[in-house]
Amino acid sequence: MDLQPSSKNSAFASSMGVDYIVNFNFSSANDKAEAATQFENLIAALDNVGMRTTVRPGTEGKLLVFVRFRSTQKLIGEVYRSRVKDWLHGIRPAAPDQETQRSLDKEPLTGAERLRVVHSILTHPESEGGAGITPGKGQWTLVEGIFPLHDHEFNKEWMKRWSTTWAVSNEELGNIRDMFGEKVAFYFAFLESYFSFLVIAACFGVASYFLLPQYSLIFAVVNCLWSVVFVEQWKRQEVDLAVRWNVRSVSQFQSKRAQFQPETETKDPVTGEIVKVFPAWKRLTRQSLQIPFALGAGVILSALFAVNFGIEVMISEVYNGPFKSVLMFTPTVIGTVTVPILINILSNIATKLTEFENYEHDSAYEAAMVQKVFVFNFICSYVPLFLTAFVYVPFAHVIVPYIDVLGFLVQPEGEKMGTQAMFQIDPDRLRKQVIYFTVTAQAVNLAMETIVPYFKRKAFKKAKEIQDKRSGKEIVYVNDSPDERDFLDRVRNEAELDVYDVNDDLREMCMQQFGYLCLFSPVWPLTAVSFLVNNWIELRSDAAKICVEMRRPIPHRADSIGPWLDNIGFLTWLGSVTSAALVYMFSTTATGSPNVLTLTGLLGSIVFSEHIYFVAQVMVRTTLSKLDSPGLIKERQERFIIRRRYLQESMGVDEETEAHNLGGAGTFDGGNEEFWGIQKSPKEAVDAGKEIINISKKEQ
Amino acid sequence: MDLQPSSKNSAFASSMGVDYIVNFNFSSANDKAEAATQFENLIAALDNVGMRTTVRPGTEGKLLVFVRFRSTQKLIGEVYRSRVKDWLHGIRPAAPDQETQRSLDKEPLTGAERLRVVHSILTHPESEGGAGITPGKGQWTLVEGIFPLHDHEFNKEWMKRWSTTWAVSNEELGNIRDMFGEKVAFYFAFLESYFSFLVIAACFGVASYFLLPQYSLIFAVVNCLWSVVFVEQWKRQEVDLAVRWNVRSVSQFQSKRAQFQPETETKDPVTGEIVKVFPAWKRLTRQSLQIPFALGAGVILSALFAVNFGIEVMISEVYNGPFKSVLMFTPTVIGTVTVPILINILSNIATKLTEFENYEHDSAYEAAMVQKVFVFNFICSYVPLFLTAFVYVPFAHVIVPYIDVLGFLVQPEGEKMGTQAMFQIDPDRLRKQVIYFTVTAQAVNLAMETIVPYFKRKAFKKAKEIQDKRSGKEIVYVNDSPDERDFLDRVRNEAELDVYDVNDDLREMCMQQFGYLCLFSPVWPLTAVSFLVNNWIELRSDAAKICVEMRRPIPHRADSIGPWLDNIGFLTWLGSVTSAALVYMFSTTATGSPNVLTLTGLLGSIVFSEHIYFVAQVMVRTTLSKLDSPGLIKERQERFIIRRRYLQESMGVDEETEAHNLGGAGTFDGGNEEFWGIQKSPKEAVDAGKEIINISKKEQ
Repeated sequence: MDLQPSSKNSAFASSMGVDYIVNFNFSSANDKAEAATQFENLIAALDNVGMRTTVRPGTEGKLLVFVRFRSTQKLIGEVYRSRVKDWLHGIRPAAPDQETQRSLDKEPLTGAERLRVVHSILTHPESEGGAGITPGKGQWTLVEGIFPLHDHEFNKEWMKRWSTTWAVSNEELGNIRDMFGEKVAFYFAFLESYFSFLVIAACFGVASYFLLPQYSLIFAVVNCLWSVVFVEQWKRQEVDLAVRWNVRSVSQFQSKRAQFQPETETKDPVTGEIVKVFPAWKRLTRQSLQIPFALGAGVILSALFAVNFGIEVMISEVYNGPFKSVLMFTPTVIGTVTVPILINILSNIATKLTEFENYEHDSAYEAAMVQKVFVFNFICSYVPLFLTAFVYVPFAHVIVPYIDVLGFLVQPEGEKMGTQAMFQIDPDRLRKQVIYFTVTAQAVNLAMETIVPYFKRKAFKKAKEIQDKRSGKEIVYVNDSPDERDFLDRVRNEAELDVYDVNDDLREMCMQQFGYLCLFSPVWPLTAVSFLVNNWIELRSDAAKICVEMRRPIPHRADSIGPWLDNIGFLTWLGSVTSAALVYMFSTTATGSPNVLTLTGLLGSIVFSEHIYFVAQVMVRTTLSKLDSPGLIKERQERFIIRRRYLQESMGVDEETEAHNLGGAGTFDGGNEEFWGIQKSPKEAVDAGKEIINISKKEQ
Repeated sequence: MDLQPSSKNSAFASSMGVDYIVNFNFSSANDKAEAATQFENLIAALDNVGMRTTVRPGTEGKLLVFVRFRSTQKLIGEVYRSRVKDWLHGIRPAAPDQETQRSLDKEPLTGAERLRVVHSILTHPESEGGAGITPGKGQWTLVEGIFPLHDHEFNKEWMKRWSTTWAVSNEELGNIRDMFGEKVAFYFAFLESYFSFLVIAACFGVASYFLLPQYSLIFAVVNCLWSVVFVEQWKRQEVDLAVRWNVRSVSQFQSKRAQFQPETETKDPVTGEIVKVFPAWKRLTRQSLQIPFALGAGVILSALFAVNFGIEVMISEVYNGPFKSVLMFTPTVIGTVTVPILINILSNIATKLTEFENYEHDSAYEAAMVQKVFVFNFICSYVPLFLTAFVYVPFAHVIVPYIDVLGFLVQPEGEKMGTQAMFQIDPDRLRKQVIYFTVTAQAVNLAMETIVPYFKRKAFKKAKEIQDKRSGKEIVYVNDSPDERDFLDRVRNEAELDVYDVNDDLREMCMQQFGYLCLFSPVWPLTAVSFLVNNWIELRSDAAKICVEMRRPIPHRADSIGPWLDNIGFLTWLGSVTSAALVYMFSTTATGSPNVLTLTGLLGSIVFSEHIYFVAQVMVRTTLSKLDSPGLIKERQERFIIRRRYLQESMGVDEETEAHNLGGAGTFDGGNEEFWGIQKSPKEAVDAGKEIINISKKEQ
């Protein structure tokens, strides 16, 4: 926060005071006239909502429309209005100050808030007072995108600070929130919280690696408890952050999706406004289609993996014929070709389904989509390992002869004693695979994410420059005023960057890291160590990615990591099941010989482990709920202050005096005077009582 | 509600305007002087807090101190203060009207609210402005109790209405709430909701009985789903009722326990008041003692039941020697003697533990106690059936020879082929036992609860009258003024009644009814029918019990059925496990022969059923959460109204106008004028853009 004001001001100057840039791709229009009309409409729409515009040539075939608020007063008004609306809907516990200017002094306008307010004016439907610009959709087919400019000074300082510190402080998270919005800030908060938990897991992992036997029961139990504690504490931390950032339950009041098709109009029972709605039961009915879809997609993808796995085993471990070294690549080729095609088809169906579910808000749509894609991610990430652990190792002896329909592949090699004797299960296959997924794949992923795009971009740019020079295209930029040249170069650069989606990074964290840790780390206790190293880099490389390789994200708000919260909860539960199964199946007894495996034993250990998990979850949750969090205290406090101020201001009196004033020495009224009047004062009552006591005692 | 005002007024007159009666037992004092001093203190304490008192002789050795507010104004002031305090703590969503009298006109004072406010003044510690009277404790050793008088007119009408109607309407629940407080009203609401769900279960039960085979899988699944839906909808209904009754989260703001021992003082982070607290982590540490206690109690009690069960089986089914008909009663005798002793000892330990946990509020203390006693209840109710179903039937053949350590009991009978051949498992034992618990025990219970106490009371009274007449004790009452005689008789009568504890009735409903339904109804599908009949009577007999056999309960507030909510949730889960086990073990295949049982099959069916249960629970919960409830809408609405009014009153403007006023045609400021000034108006921007489009097109 300390460097925010100075940095903001200089950034504002260096970015020429631009709020957003609309990238207008006139080259994809059918003709000049269409492009001109749509362009004219765009400028008019922006002008209508109080925006100032100026136009410059963009990269080939594009226009850059620079947008900013025409008047600061209007901007301040909109910001204040948005804060008041938040408070009315209970998103922020504290009411903004009564006076606009004072509210802004107390709670200065951050870059993210400013951009969010402007963005909502640009994109909200006209009926709600916005310009209704929906890139690529409706009447805005030529609008390629709307994006804000990076604050390079902030980015530079950010990268510098993070490369020299070990942990990310709450203050740093606040900086990210102020610059990129709560949604991105929640990702980094999650990453940081996960990172600090990984330190514990990694220490324990190293200790187990050296001290405990392989597939240790103790390791599995501790690992499972660790994941439960992590998820439960994150849930609390999330609520805490949401309250502190004034975004509690903001997901329920997100902006409407432009594609939402309301069915009826109804009066909002809370605010009394007329709202357009889609009946909840109808959406529920449509959502129920998810179940057959998830099952179908799961079965198809799993079958593909199983077939591929079968082929791989046959070739690598059974087949000994010619071209083995070439044929070895068959499964990889099949996988690389068919999986993406299948996922593409399934993703299209998922999109159609999610659109059919007709969500009102972007956040709900996004969550529904994430949940569908989770099925694919899950299968692609874990099914290969499941196949090895729970099919290949225990059943390969039984299954291989059956799937050896191509038995003739073996014959030419010579006169062996048949498949069964010849085939050897590779006991270390699972371990190798886990290490591959948790070390090699992570490193490759990191490289793909950071280094490759950097060089790709460099190379492309170079190629384009050469090409442009050859064809003499750089003529367009000749018109740039020399003062603006650097700035425009920078803008054209940023316009070509990708759009950042925080869900991609969250998916990577949850599926490619946390999931393996929960599900398979008993196979190789050092998993957490690998992730710890990876994460230290990831935290920084993700920051660099946002700064360098992506357009500055539009600072959306969020009150949580969304559907990923449920997903990591699901993974911890599944972890309790798979860990138990792995330990039961692979751990060796004290004598070194493998246990005699029975289905009853397997089921029993799974049931046992799962119930330990449930009990642990309830206990951790109860314990954590007893401990107050600063955010929740703040929320209650602010609610209380509002109420008390309301009392004092509205009623003109303090509730204490009110009650006391009324409590004067009133007169006796009502009741039966004859009954009560027999004893006229407390003194007489005492006497009457004493008399009864005395009489009674005498009698006894 | 309609008959409330008239009934209240007449009741007020017929009860002489008495709010509470303090029962002062001077005969248990050491001497006259002690009694007189304590009595004097009592009257002084009552006078201090603005109470008017009058004294009459009670039954033998007792004084009746009649208490009422000295001034109506003071009462109204206290009521208003309590309402404002509720609102400040967020218990009621709507603020009370600014003006005291108007608030009372809008929301008339009910009997329950009046009594609650007076009771809190009588019992709150002096530091909080109360009289600090704690019956039987501290300086009030001779105060036997504080109780309000029944409103006989209301009670009579209530009984009449309920004996002629089928269902209990929301209005009736409102009446109960207005008369006996929310805690009792929640019990009747739960009973009514459970009753209406039982109708469905009973219909399905009858159909299954005639159409489905015994131990039907379909029945078990539907029964389990039914219980899930019931619990989930009750959770919602509870929240809804709490909001409507203005008691949401009231359990967190209950009155302090007199026995609470604070450790430190701290500033309440919300209200800023200095409060005395006991650290949460310390209480958590103490609470962890519950786990060994519950395990220990469970093991000891279960062992007792198992031993007893073993003896019973040996005698009734193995032993054929002399005195069999007498020995048959041995287990019953052992059970009747030892179980109560053991439970008494364990209950004492439980009370000690709960006191050690040092709860701040009565409700928390009560909940902790209920949860401990739940363990005993659980074992006494279900372990006999568990033993039959999961030990006796499958293992009797194996176990009986081992437990026949008294083998000589068999020998004298003749030369049999040994125990094993002689012993026959009674396959219908489980069914008989379930019918016993769900029909016979229910009927016995009902009789014990209603008819027996009635006659007992009649007989005792008669005996006492005769005794009193003989010893000439009735002299005391001679002093009664003739006008008061009837009234005082009535009061003396009510003073001798028991104190009603709603937890006893809730325990009966949850443990003795709902539990059997979840856990064992696959054994006998007509269980629900028996409960339906029983419940129709129970709903009415409980009402009669409160009216006739119990002192009028002090109208405590509550926002839920408390710990029983968790308990019924636990029973539904356990039901999914036992149902699966019962169906798997006892259902016969299509050919009529029993299945071959394996442990794997048993575990498999339990795992399967349990996960179906979890999925069903999540789905029902999600579905219900999508549907809005009137109470929650009301809550949000009232919050919204408060906020809007706050805005309007505090800020003097509507948020809409505020924003619009600011949004006037401001001037351009900030930013880089050179950059933006190139195109001075939207028109110029359009032209500039069109030019770029045209140039570019020419080039292509």
